[in-house]
Amino acid sequence: MELQAKKVERIRIYDVALAAGVSVATASKALNDTGRMAPETRDRVKRAAVELGFRPNAMARGLLSKRSFTVGLLTNDTYGRFTLPLMAGISEALVDHGVSVFLCTIEDDPTLAKIHVDAMLDKQVDGIIASGKRIDRRLPVDMTHLPVPVVYAFTDGPDDSVRFVSDDAQGSRDAAQWMIGLGRKRLVHVTGPTSFASVQARAEAFSDTAGSGAKILHGTWSEAWGHEAVAQLWGGDRPRPDGIFCGNDQIARGVVDALRERGVDVPRDVSVVGFDNWEIVAAATRPPLTSVDMNLKALGREAGLTVLAMAEGKQVEPGIRKLPCRLIVRQSCGGVAAD
Amino acid sequence: MELQAKKVERIRIYDVALAAGVSVATASKALNDTGRMAPETRDRVKRAAVELGFRPNAMARGLLSKRSFTVGLLTNDTYGRFTLPLMAGISEALVDHGVSVFLCTIEDDPTLAKIHVDAMLDKQVDGIIASGKRIDRRLPVDMTHLPVPVVYAFTDGPDDSVRFVSDDAQGSRDAAQWMIGLGRKRLVHVTGPTSFASVQARAEAFSDTAGSGAKILHGTWSEAWGHEAVAQLWGGDRPRPDGIFCGNDQIARGVVDALRERGVDVPRDVSVVGFDNWEIVAAATRPPLTSVDMNLKALGREAGLTVLAMAEGKQVEPGIRKLPCRLIVRQSCGGVAAD
Repeated sequence: MELQAKKVERIRIYDVALAAGVSVATASKALNDTGRMAPETRDRVKRAAVELGFRPNAMARGLLSKRSFTVGLLTNDTYGRFTLPLMAGISEALVDHGVSVFLCTIEDDPTLAKIHVDAMLDKQVDGIIASGKRIDRRLPVDMTHLPVPVVYAFTDGPDDSVRFVSDDAQGSRDAAQWMIGLGRKRLVHVTGPTSFASVQARAEAFSDTAGSGAKILHGTWSEAWGHEAVAQLWGGDRPRPDGIFCGNDQIARGVVDALRERGVDVPRDVSVVGFDNWEIVAAATRPPLTSVDMNLKALGREAGLTVLAMAEGKQVEPGIRKLPCRLIVRQSCGGVAAD
Repeated sequence: MELQAKKVERIRIYDVALAAGVSVATASKALNDTGRMAPETRDRVKRAAVELGFRPNAMARGLLSKRSFTVGLLTNDTYGRFTLPLMAGISEALVDHGVSVFLCTIEDDPTLAKIHVDAMLDKQVDGIIASGKRIDRRLPVDMTHLPVPVVYAFTDGPDDSVRFVSDDAQGSRDAAQWMIGLGRKRLVHVTGPTSFASVQARAEAFSDTAGSGAKILHGTWSEAWGHEAVAQLWGGDRPRPDGIFCGNDQIARGVVDALRERGVDVPRDVSVVGFDNWEIVAAATRPPLTSVDMNLKALGREAGLTVLAMAEGKQVEPGIRKLPCRLIVRQSCGGVAAD
């Protein structure tokens, strides 16, 4: 067993489980003489614990025996575009603690949501992470009085809950500042419907940065809207924008394609920045899109570690945690020098 | 309770659970006087069962009390493109049976896979569905001797297992025949790497349908490859194709964009068909793509019902079940009349 090289005081139940080839839950039960399993399995775990020098203190034993080493992830994002990166982050953070993540999709159906939450409780998950496709909508199920901790990630939650969202305003500011730094003077924001809280937060931050005269166009979250916005902007004889910040990568892709078809060179004549950094769209755009990444994986990691800490009895301040976005620079902005 | 209107003999445990506002697992435990729950909950379930006239026979009671009403879905498709439609189908089929689906992603890591399978067994799932991103690769975990039934969907499995895949050859044949029916005479297949079993199956069926002289070009699964293939096909002075069948929608999108940029009209001059019917790409292409849909949702539904039947003790023949693909007609083929 390679793990023997580690210092004795750092040996965790996870190391024992790994050495014995079982889950942490099984290892925990084996060591606590609870649960049903083959006697060989229990022996193997106990042997591994002795060989590795694993000695949990009484308090840890108590905590361990009550834990199920599973976290439930509930989402209404059937498409998975936001939830899957989140899940990857949660899994990555929790696997080191021997915790598995179970995802259930509820498709905005209250009955389904109720059934799945109940199934999670029935399986005695250590905690639940609620997730969605926008930060200003709640899942159709009340989770305020569950016997396990709940955190909210990329979805709305009750006032006294712990919520993780990305910092839309900062992401928007960074995008506008980046284009200004490249010498762009006539910025436009082409974005989604005003009914989205993130659209409003980004638009406000964009105005603050680019100046209140900078135009903002609202439409749908689609490539087609990117095409239409360019038709509007290039339709009249007003001064054309030299920098377009888009509300998502699909709009940005439509904008870039429409500009190319008009013979407008991106990035020479116009810089374009997207939002979401959705690899499949951003990387396939010609030229590839500079885009704001919401760091959903990091957000998942934080949410996972937080729900785990709460499951272990730690007190966590309720409120909204805004995690920073990050600008991913590809070729759609160019290296135009500042004036 | 609205459900009372239903005929007595059709009342299922699911109806009782729904009326009592609990999961099927909880309802089952309440009725079997097992499990831990608030006495009010147990009473509520029993009352609902009486009111609805729910009377399981002895055998059903035995089966019910052993069931956990959860199915585990294990996948290495982190991106979720294949697994999420599959999961939607599984959920849809199983929710009527009161069964929740828990998804775990394993990212091709054997240790992770082992931990998650173990966690699923620990949670006493009724069965496991293994899933992936290609039909000729296995997940990095041996599930041949698990105490619960396992079925394989859109991933490879052991010879004596139950496997669900889509019928690549039939999908490919349909696409080629569709273009031939539109009067196209010079078909080309632009597809992915030869190392994929589906690429081989589709290429073979394409040759059988379009004639052995019909060209097949292999490359990567990308828009860039679509552009490059058009450059190759239009580069020399050989006769140009009038129908291009692509191995996925991303290649097809590259082909359509490249043709437009060369002034070749799609669908007037050339018909283009994609594969996967990946809405986000197919619908945004100009013109929108006609594409082969692998019916992953239906595949998920079948896999879900099968694993459930196995969990209930039914014998299921091992082997590969090929489910038909379906051609989704949009505008990229046109309505060219057959000669």
